[in-house]
Amino acid sequence: MPSHEQMVAAVNGYVAAFDKGDPAAVAALFAPDATVEDPVGTDAHKGHDAILAFYTMSMQTGAKLKLEGPVRTATNYAAFAFSVSFGHSADARVDVIDTFKFNDEGKVVEMRAYFGPNNMQGLG
Amino acid sequence: MPSHEQMVAAVNGYVAAFDKGDPAAVAALFAPDATVEDPVGTDAHKGHDAILAFYTMSMQTGAKLKLEGPVRTATNYAAFAFSVSFGHSADARVDVIDTFKFNDEGKVVEMRAYFGPNNMQGLG
Repeated sequence: MPSHEQMVAAVNGYVAAFDKGDPAAVAALFAPDATVEDPVGTDAHKGHDAILAFYTMSMQTGAKLKLEGPVRTATNYAAFAFSVSFGHSADARVDVIDTFKFNDEGKVVEMRAYFGPNNMQGLG
Repeated sequence: MPSHEQMVAAVNGYVAAFDKGDPAAVAALFAPDATVEDPVGTDAHKGHDAILAFYTMSMQTGAKLKLEGPVRTATNYAAFAFSVSFGHSADARVDVIDTFKFNDEGKVVEMRAYFGPNNMQGLG
């Protein structure tokens, strides 16, 4: 099972990859057969290629993530609250909570993103 | 499906019930066959009686909850970050993220609490 420190490092790597606009660095955090359900309730992106395509598209919005409080970890799960800002619009903000489930190799096998229309401000 | 406002009201009711030390008010938020996995990775408490017993015990610690940021909602899920304080110890704090899954009647059918030893300060 990955340690707390390994899981926190993965979350920090996720945030840093958005800062750099590096979707491949995000995709590398995931296991080959991982699923990404973003937001929860939508069809999951499954597998490395689909996940890379999804994050490539996500980063084209200019989204930057800021952690809001400490990363919580429980066994092989991490949960973290963050806000999303967009370079082109100073007022736009989305509040999100993500959960990562890890395998024994420390790769993310399942990501779920919790947010909806009521968590968006200043968009559109 | 419950509305964003209904799900936020349930979360606020959960926090308020801890303030009052009213485990029955928490249990009333759950469907009769709901599960509570607190923390994630432990055996779930299943059903109204087990859930009431669990929250009765939880509240005996004097735990009070403070939301840390807005409640996120996605379809029939809510996710919320909070800190826990304890009346008997000014320094003790636990950082937690909970997820609630709701049924169509607006009752919680699944609760999962994400926190671990590294999210605890000043305890023991």
